[in-house]
Amino acid sequence: MTILESIRGPRDLKALTEAELDELAEEIREFLVQAVARTGGHLGPNLGVVELTVALHRVFDSPVDRILWDTGHQSYVHKLLTGRQDFSKLRGKGGLSGYPSREESEHDVIENSHASTVLGWADGFAKAHQVLGSSGHVVAVIGDGALTGGMAWEALNNIAAAKDRPLIIVVNDNERSYAPTIGGLANHLATLRTTDGYERVLAWGKDVLQHTPVIGQPLYESLHGAKKGFKDAFAPQGMFEDLGLKYVGPIDGHDIAAVESALRRAKRFHGPVLVHCLTEKGRGYQPALEDEADRFHTVGVMDPLTCEPLAPSNGPSWTSVFGDEIADIGGRRPDVVAITAAMLHPVGLTKFAERFPERVWDVGIAEQHAAVSAAGLATGGLHPVVAVYATFLNRAFDQLLMDVALHKCGVTFVLDRAGITGVDGASHNGMWDMSILQVVPGLRIAAPRDAERLRQELREAVEVADAPTVVRFPKESVGEPVDAIGRIGGMDVLHRADDAEVLLVSVGALASVCLQTVELLGGRGIRCTVVDPRWVKPVDEQLAPLAAQHRLVAVVEDNSRNGGVGSAVGQALRDADVDVPLRTFGIPEQFLAHAKRGEVLADIGLTPVEIAGRISASMAVKES
Amino acid sequence: MTILESIRGPRDLKALTEAELDELAEEIREFLVQAVARTGGHLGPNLGVVELTVALHRVFDSPVDRILWDTGHQSYVHKLLTGRQDFSKLRGKGGLSGYPSREESEHDVIENSHASTVLGWADGFAKAHQVLGSSGHVVAVIGDGALTGGMAWEALNNIAAAKDRPLIIVVNDNERSYAPTIGGLANHLATLRTTDGYERVLAWGKDVLQHTPVIGQPLYESLHGAKKGFKDAFAPQGMFEDLGLKYVGPIDGHDIAAVESALRRAKRFHGPVLVHCLTEKGRGYQPALEDEADRFHTVGVMDPLTCEPLAPSNGPSWTSVFGDEIADIGGRRPDVVAITAAMLHPVGLTKFAERFPERVWDVGIAEQHAAVSAAGLATGGLHPVVAVYATFLNRAFDQLLMDVALHKCGVTFVLDRAGITGVDGASHNGMWDMSILQVVPGLRIAAPRDAERLRQELREAVEVADAPTVVRFPKESVGEPVDAIGRIGGMDVLHRADDAEVLLVSVGALASVCLQTVELLGGRGIRCTVVDPRWVKPVDEQLAPLAAQHRLVAVVEDNSRNGGVGSAVGQALRDADVDVPLRTFGIPEQFLAHAKRGEVLADIGLTPVEIAGRISASMAVKES
Repeated sequence: MTILESIRGPRDLKALTEAELDELAEEIREFLVQAVARTGGHLGPNLGVVELTVALHRVFDSPVDRILWDTGHQSYVHKLLTGRQDFSKLRGKGGLSGYPSREESEHDVIENSHASTVLGWADGFAKAHQVLGSSGHVVAVIGDGALTGGMAWEALNNIAAAKDRPLIIVVNDNERSYAPTIGGLANHLATLRTTDGYERVLAWGKDVLQHTPVIGQPLYESLHGAKKGFKDAFAPQGMFEDLGLKYVGPIDGHDIAAVESALRRAKRFHGPVLVHCLTEKGRGYQPALEDEADRFHTVGVMDPLTCEPLAPSNGPSWTSVFGDEIADIGGRRPDVVAITAAMLHPVGLTKFAERFPERVWDVGIAEQHAAVSAAGLATGGLHPVVAVYATFLNRAFDQLLMDVALHKCGVTFVLDRAGITGVDGASHNGMWDMSILQVVPGLRIAAPRDAERLRQELREAVEVADAPTVVRFPKESVGEPVDAIGRIGGMDVLHRADDAEVLLVSVGALASVCLQTVELLGGRGIRCTVVDPRWVKPVDEQLAPLAAQHRLVAVVEDNSRNGGVGSAVGQALRDADVDVPLRTFGIPEQFLAHAKRGEVLADIGLTPVEIAGRISASMAVKES
Repeated sequence: MTILESIRGPRDLKALTEAELDELAEEIREFLVQAVARTGGHLGPNLGVVELTVALHRVFDSPVDRILWDTGHQSYVHKLLTGRQDFSKLRGKGGLSGYPSREESEHDVIENSHASTVLGWADGFAKAHQVLGSSGHVVAVIGDGALTGGMAWEALNNIAAAKDRPLIIVVNDNERSYAPTIGGLANHLATLRTTDGYERVLAWGKDVLQHTPVIGQPLYESLHGAKKGFKDAFAPQGMFEDLGLKYVGPIDGHDIAAVESALRRAKRFHGPVLVHCLTEKGRGYQPALEDEADRFHTVGVMDPLTCEPLAPSNGPSWTSVFGDEIADIGGRRPDVVAITAAMLHPVGLTKFAERFPERVWDVGIAEQHAAVSAAGLATGGLHPVVAVYATFLNRAFDQLLMDVALHKCGVTFVLDRAGITGVDGASHNGMWDMSILQVVPGLRIAAPRDAERLRQELREAVEVADAPTVVRFPKESVGEPVDAIGRIGGMDVLHRADDAEVLLVSVGALASVCLQTVELLGGRGIRCTVVDPRWVKPVDEQLAPLAAQHRLVAVVEDNSRNGGVGSAVGQALRDADVDVPLRTFGIPEQFLAHAKRGEVLADIGLTPVEIAGRISASMAVKES
């Protein structure tokens, strides 16, 4: 039995010797590499927090003490130490979640894996403890990147205001660049710099990153610039103590004894305190350390030795189609600029950034700023393209409405990972965008069904100068083209039949589902017309008259049923006094557990069989 | 002709002598007091920025230089100096807007009057200038309070990252408390403290505020605590220069020459620079200076000498009914706590705060933090009530969804100023809440129709322990009670008739509009049932069967037609295979210009005449 296998819960950690702890850390790293290679998942971040997590669980008594993880993808080690060592179905249906999960364990508290929230949660817990007179410590672990989000600062302002309310903030700082001029911390850092680990990291950072040209300057300088504000604000102990926060650090986050000692000091302090830990993303796994882009932030199924992917590729992704097209558009249109919220590569802006480095900005984990600064850019004469995962747009709703739309700014929002994303679970599905965006005056939404439509609709979007546009598409591979056989108004006709009874309105990537549904209905003698509106907001003016020629209208969308395209179509029909029965198919009002995209779609009935069954049943009701 | 009358535009300011400028400042103050007393509007903030605005327009060349105002209620002086001196219909239909307005003037840029946005806009403009090689300065004016919003910090991080991109931030700091330990700034402040104005303000702050007990400690201390984080982070020149921002200040914001000199220095600097101006809210108007609560932040129509209100009172407001009831609930329920985002008094939490000072928190202009910390409070064992204007909830959508709802937290959101608010214009209407909230799994929405229902539904809301609840109500007076004559499911029946053809679903405060509609329809021989669902989400299970007994269903709501209660009712009917024709009445998809609430409702057709007309027409179509 390995030491890791002997750990049934945090309590078992406390009896281990220093040598055993070191061995445990090695076992955990080996486990993580093997396990995550088998299923895919977040690797680099977890390799970086092995010692930090061990120390946290030795110093604090979870769950009486609340250990809170920001952006929970760094919680794998925490899972291993709290009785969850079966990673065989990690992120798969019925397996462990890739994030903390209250269903899995009483040691998990926050499931939200949108960044920068943990300090707000911690402030709430600390206040509750104060009101209720509870004992128990509140410990929030947050990465340095997440401190670029405004929520973190809102929380710090509140936490710092109450000097008598205990709360421990652990900054997991895996950033490799440090300004030489960090004042009061210089001495601490000088000591740390003599250790091998830190020296190596520093050297790596300089060697590798200075030669990766991104967004107009070497990446090293760029990261340095982007984070310097917080880093410098961060480093001087004086500033934090002025804020009312006691500052402890920086600590070598891979030295368990040092981290424990700092945490014990923090635990004794009767007020807000910040422990600054320096860690290395990908620690101990050479391929991760050598990966220039993101240190194996997330990996797919792969060979852990060669790192070759073992899952079959299904052709180009939606992201790559967007990435190619926006780079082309950038070549023709010098006024087109791009914005990302700390995800340049994942959202497909790499090519654009290489070709037009002075026309792309990474604003940090700061979707609000992405949208507001886009309004300024647009009013200043440019056409910004804000590329973001659909789920993260929720953070910029007010800015999209009040800054971009109210001011009639031509800004294109490109929503990747729209609809069901699957394995990342409840917080990563992009299933609300086509509902909440319906209220935004003047905004137009395109939902392309295939690669060619994505390219076309993106080109149409960047032509709109006086209103926001949205182009939304799902995760994964783009699939086969679905050609139109005609046009009605602005809508593509995908299928037609003489005397069709049912009008199927197919939204975006669900075109193939709709066409299969038509086949099934055909087998039951029900004839259909299928249209893809291409632009789903506003509803095409030709839709109501077309609907009036059918006995039933069905809308199929990869979005919440509540208030989505189906609802918008319903309103368009009502406004035209067309009272043809309508049925809407989409995502029900619930949070969806992690599983593969196809499994989730099947679970919620977004399949040809289910849709065809419901449509035939409704037709039967009408006839009876 | 006064000097003010001779100012047709900013250019005219430049020829004035120092003595004339002082006279102009006096004339402007006199004008503001007289004009705003006549119409109501924002008074205190504008009295505070007279000299600052004059200086800005003397140093910069608007509109080539972009002068951007955060939370535009501080733009009245700017209006006076840019050709807009007819304040007779301020905030009234056809009159000047209470905020900047691009329709009014080329000198206005940002109409959004949600706080903390201006630095993001400025970052966008500065980037556009850089890409396009434009000349012209970018000047952003922001209050110290707005710096508590996370967006401001996201923007500062971006602005500071580019040392070669010119941008001038003017902090209009009217905060009266300064820590004695502000390091590098102590010398500057010492000089300022010898001036009469600053000394008087400081003394006022200490005398008055230290004796106003709010939220558990004297207000002075509390404000000090709340703002100290930013103030201290703010004050030391060193920190801003570390951030990459040149710091100029602090400047006496009422000394035109001093402000001009600082602005000219800032204008010559080729990078981001921050000018810190100290101003006095309500400056020069004794009644405002003596007002402990908010220094006449906003006033109604009043006598400028006695400050007696001149508009008739229409009985208790929705806010006051809420304020009384939540204080009662707090007495019975020690676990009920309250949160405000910098609006303790306007949202009606004054009484609660007086009775339970240790159970209420002002989190700053930080709606995101209000929601996230509420999730922590709820998980920690309390029931938080987050009281906020409906329009500002848009800023916390992601947090409500991902933190509160996903974690099944019992948190009650009380949305004041829901629906049409009127005179504040496009950015203050709370007309989207019942649409965007429809997607939130498990969330329940109550829309009370009168005072008694508000009390009842609030009591019901705070009993829900495993999901967020929302109670939303409009601005102004609560009006007469509308009693129920029966119950169907959870719905109040407000009117019934034998063999009724039309089912009217009345949402919240529009009950009286619905009952008047019924009278008009009765005159045309159309009989109606009227129900108030009380809780509009989820849709009551009895609604579909009830609808099936009618020939037409009409939903009337003070909310966007897109995706609102009408759409939710439509979906409930479809899911029950009830295909009775539906008509929905609400706010169309547009931004609404300022006017009185009744005028706006009339303009958009939310009147008994219009609704009755549309219903009869639809009935006629059905019959034909």
